Amino acid sequence: MKTCRTVASLRQALPAAAGAGIGLVPTMGALHEGHLSLVRGSRRENDITVVSIFVNPAQFGPGEDLQRYPRDPERDSALLAGEGADVLFMPDASQMYPSPYRTYVDVTGLDEKLCGRSRPGHFRGVATIVLKLFNLVRPQRAYFGQKDAQQALIIRQLLRDLDLSVQLRVLPIVRDADGLALSSRNIYLSADQRRAALALPRSLELARDMIAGGQRRSRVVRAAMEAEIAREPLLTVDYIAVVGLDDLEEAAEIVPGHALVAAAVRAGQTRLIDNYLSGDLSC
Amino acid sequence: MKTCRTVASLRQALPAAAGAGIGLVPTMGALHEGHLSLVRGSRRENDITVVSIFVNPAQFGPGEDLQRYPRDPERDSALLAGEGADVLFMPDASQMYPSPYRTYVDVTGLDEKLCGRSRPGHFRGVATIVLKLFNLVRPQRAYFGQKDAQQALIIRQLLRDLDLSVQLRVLPIVRDADGLALSSRNIYLSADQRRAALALPRSLELARDMIAGGQRRSRVVRAAMEAEIAREPLLTVDYIAVVGLDDLEEAAEIVPGHALVAAAVRAGQTRLIDNYLSGDLSC
Repeated sequence: MKTCRTVASLRQALPAAAGAGIGLVPTMGALHEGHLSLVRGSRRENDITVVSIFVNPAQFGPGEDLQRYPRDPERDSALLAGEGADVLFMPDASQMYPSPYRTYVDVTGLDEKLCGRSRPGHFRGVATIVLKLFNLVRPQRAYFGQKDAQQALIIRQLLRDLDLSVQLRVLPIVRDADGLALSSRNIYLSADQRRAALALPRSLELARDMIAGGQRRSRVVRAAMEAEIAREPLLTVDYIAVVGLDDLEEAAEIVPGHALVAAAVRAGQTRLIDNYLSGDLSC
Repeated sequence: MKTCRTVASLRQALPAAAGAGIGLVPTMGALHEGHLSLVRGSRRENDITVVSIFVNPAQFGPGEDLQRYPRDPERDSALLAGEGADVLFMPDASQMYPSPYRTYVDVTGLDEKLCGRSRPGHFRGVATIVLKLFNLVRPQRAYFGQKDAQQALIIRQLLRDLDLSVQLRVLPIVRDADGLALSSRNIYLSADQRRAALALPRSLELARDMIAGGQRRSRVVRAAMEAEIAREPLLTVDYIAVVGLDDLEEAAEIVPGHALVAAAVRAGQTRLIDNYLSGDLSC
């Protein structure tokens, strides 16, 4: 595995022939099985797998956890080498945002909903860095986790709108044995908070079962999820959304195959997200 | 010359091998000698020259001249064939902005100055359509006129910030015999307005001569230009700017080689721009 810390060395490490089949896995490091499943997905479909690790300042708000976001480059590097990744791109901020940096991408309409409501500017940062990585790596395929479903939806829209011919692969959420979706931020949780946090996946299982059982009224599903999460006093709800998959708009009726049930909660300072997807975000 | 009206047909018309040396000349049509000089510039340096004609709604504001902007596709097409352009891309708005369209690019800091002040949203529209054309055509080089100096500066910043490896060529302003910079909008002018409009290039010649003569105080140059334009009662000044070339900021002192003197005036409903550049915008 070749490790590149600069844009120039990354460009040199990539093959000149664009037909080689390059898969890109963009991450912020602190890797877990969710990330590694993306690397395996890329390895299955591409000749070359490029993984980026960059804790992107542009997608953190002023009060957020940019400074304390977990970082463990040595462990990450060993894990990726073990998975057979070909190139690890690990730039610092001055490589990605050389001064004066001025250009940002907005995916309007999708970026202010759900997570965008409590994290203004977050998806501008995500869309911008992902577009930059696409331009640098020129992958045939890019791999994202379904846990960040809104992010995947925004990238899908960006790809269409900006006429990029990158295939988007959105792979399933990977969970711990207790049901909690893997997240680099789970290490912030105390034992009590972690137990409480399980109400989040439980509420989504409830939603899934209700929809599978024929329930089509968004309001009813949302209310059941609210009740489930409300039983845990250590959690506060950021949002619970039962929305259409194309526009993230609340609709009275759930359309299976085109629905996203997503929720964000806080346990202390830690914000956790999870979702149930009825449909496909890959393209 | 192959004419393509859809994104799909454009993709088919372009060679698969990226190394072919493609030059892109983005235009809004109503072609004049300024545009044709860009086509010639591209023909000199590239195997294939792609010209786009698209009156981009996203770069027109609500009160602007989108509807009456001059259009003459047959004449344009004949001119381009005569110049030896290889591909003419002439899409309609539904090709470039298929519904739902959501993604826009902002080059912050540069986009609200000079023309951006009286045309809010204009450079968002420009940056977005140019990025889309870069992604569709994947040119090695792109050709813009110096008359739109702020536009060229914004594209240069976008290329750097988004890690695109397109070379930017900014070619000199082409003028009519009387000194007026060529513009598709010049046909809006009455004979009296046209005579009055010549104060704009005269004021820029004055600035050029003052700087060549050693004048370094922005304020003095600007005042002389104001006085020159004020002699024409048919003109109103939109802005007169003596600014640094990298940030478009007013500075007390002019630094030759890094200065842009730019002005916009109105004659009736018609807005005209022109500039004197001390430095280079190509990259």
